[in-house]
Amino acid sequence: MRFIIQRDRLVQSVQDVMKAVTSRTTIPILTGIKITASSEGVTLTGSDSDISIESFIPNEEDGDEIVEIKQAGSIVLQAKFFSEIVKKLPTDSVEIEVLGSLQTVIRSGKSEFNLNGLDAEEYPHLPQIEENNKFHIATDLLKTMIRQTFFAVSTSETRPILTGVNWKIENGELNCIATDSHRLALRKAKIEIENNESYNVVIPGKSLNELSKIIDDSNELIDIVITENQILFKAKHLLFFSRLLEGNYPDTSRLIPSESKTDIIVNTKEFLHAIDRASLLAREGRNNVVKLSTIDGGVIEISSNTPEVGKVVEEIQSQSIDGEELKISFSAKYMMDALKALEGTDIRISFTGAMRPFVINPLHDETTLQLILPVRTY
Amino acid sequence: MRFIIQRDRLVQSVQDVMKAVTSRTTIPILTGIKITASSEGVTLTGSDSDISIESFIPNEEDGDEIVEIKQAGSIVLQAKFFSEIVKKLPTDSVEIEVLGSLQTVIRSGKSEFNLNGLDAEEYPHLPQIEENNKFHIATDLLKTMIRQTFFAVSTSETRPILTGVNWKIENGELNCIATDSHRLALRKAKIEIENNESYNVVIPGKSLNELSKIIDDSNELIDIVITENQILFKAKHLLFFSRLLEGNYPDTSRLIPSESKTDIIVNTKEFLHAIDRASLLAREGRNNVVKLSTIDGGVIEISSNTPEVGKVVEEIQSQSIDGEELKISFSAKYMMDALKALEGTDIRISFTGAMRPFVINPLHDETTLQLILPVRTY
Repeated sequence: MRFIIQRDRLVQSVQDVMKAVTSRTTIPILTGIKITASSEGVTLTGSDSDISIESFIPNEEDGDEIVEIKQAGSIVLQAKFFSEIVKKLPTDSVEIEVLGSLQTVIRSGKSEFNLNGLDAEEYPHLPQIEENNKFHIATDLLKTMIRQTFFAVSTSETRPILTGVNWKIENGELNCIATDSHRLALRKAKIEIENNESYNVVIPGKSLNELSKIIDDSNELIDIVITENQILFKAKHLLFFSRLLEGNYPDTSRLIPSESKTDIIVNTKEFLHAIDRASLLAREGRNNVVKLSTIDGGVIEISSNTPEVGKVVEEIQSQSIDGEELKISFSAKYMMDALKALEGTDIRISFTGAMRPFVINPLHDETTLQLILPVRTY
Repeated sequence: MRFIIQRDRLVQSVQDVMKAVTSRTTIPILTGIKITASSEGVTLTGSDSDISIESFIPNEEDGDEIVEIKQAGSIVLQAKFFSEIVKKLPTDSVEIEVLGSLQTVIRSGKSEFNLNGLDAEEYPHLPQIEENNKFHIATDLLKTMIRQTFFAVSTSETRPILTGVNWKIENGELNCIATDSHRLALRKAKIEIENNESYNVVIPGKSLNELSKIIDDSNELIDIVITENQILFKAKHLLFFSRLLEGNYPDTSRLIPSESKTDIIVNTKEFLHAIDRASLLAREGRNNVVKLSTIDGGVIEISSNTPEVGKVVEEIQSQSIDGEELKISFSAKYMMDALKALEGTDIRISFTGAMRPFVINPLHDETTLQLILPVRTY
């Protein structure tokens, strides 16, 4: 194998596939990046066996030569060293050549690295996925949907299925749901799907988080293919595979109350900042619980009291408070996570009593919903 | 105590004095910030008993009212909570009031914090320093001198005196020296000093590092007063006290070779980047040793070899190599630290053989010197 490549494109691709590489693997070859040079260009692959990422660098793009292939072939190089080296090379152009016995030379200007490679034949094959049923979604919308749900997955392995995000596709609508059993995040969107297929899968939260880091904030379409135990995201020059979680995701639809007893409409930012301040003294203990009380004249009071430190009282003028008077306690962290995930300047919070889960929606937007279970303090 | 103050000025002063506050103290009151309101303004104090910082906020500056004192007095508030609170307050103006029994109210807009304070009478007094013999130095020069020496102090407590920077003042010249016994950094500057006093003290490296974080990059003068066991830096509205280290600093002047056998002149950045790359594969092991060899035609070769990973060879065209041929090995980290501390586009490295310490100077600048001990690899 021997080729000459533009350094910046190589650096970008290496950074992308590095998202899948971990040093904590029991399969030594997965600490490496696989490099394959073919007549069309160079392909880099990284994998931790849960996530696999393939990035392709074409010989030519928009009339610019990016890669010059001198000899096809492949090699696996230690990801940690290879990624550091390419970032620091002195010139814009890099030559990579495999000598006999897996010795690989990286040349750039007057700098020459000689790395011990690993046999690419030993690198695991990526899953072969039949692309019969695929659908697509705008990349920026996908990123938003991940951001609005991923944070609510469980970080505990006691119920592994809750560490993933449930994707349900039915009647041309994608429903993303995440819950750690204390709060729930839901985001819906219309998608175009062939044959009107339906799916119900659970994608590891970690996979979605890594995916959202490497895809652009563009409105280009990304293709998605779901199989029995894999999901594949196909963007331009990029393949992202993730395994799916096994098991049944709990039916969350019954959790979401359909009616409410108290409805508050309030400015998102003002509310977020007041919660943030009210939680400052509470952060010490195990939970950072704050109390919300409705007051006359549409005023909401947020308060917390930690006897050994002090207490905080915040007042916010709401746009409206409808229904019953209310005093309720909840985790400030969960509320701030939910508020940060919502879009829109104003939100509606719908309560069904101090002991029942409550729902937060952006005003005039039914595609996003955040649900939080209150904390009993009385 | 009761006063109203501009939030931004309060935040800035709190951040400055926080540099001295640590949560790892055996004296509970030192986890707090002392706030004193007098007829002139508000004084904040933080201390970890090694470093003490006092920041003063005057009632008025350049005709703007900054503080409005309603009632003089003082209180100590938990630094961790107080600093977080002031940063997040909703309005530009903050009212602080001590009620009975040390209860302190912080008000801003519709936000009201009630903190349990501590008795300011129990806060330790700062050292009283007689200002008979003081000298001054431009703030930006002081920052530079700290940056160029601080990094070379020892981080090990086996010889505590080496964790400090040796300041020697003699004949109107300040000499700053730091060494961890593997390398040495030296920076000299002319200063104006009354009575031509001489001093030889050792300032904890940590103190100088914290000081350099809170002083401006301006050419305003900073006053310095040295006593038997304390040093005081006086900037505008800021007092910074540090204890001095006890014991005798080793005489380092004999370490610095006065002649050389090989002299290299090379571009600082090119040399730094080559060393950085050559050390990439070596970073794994306990030491990241690189080898320097002079080659014909003024070329320097930097190389390293880690058999299990691979090897690197870098060539740099020097401006000149004078004297004997040379092969020498040294720590890439020490060399990079030294190069980053130097100013100037070109450097001279003066060697006296492969086993002897060598000296790095900026070209045409005798005020800065870095010395490194080589590593024996043959």
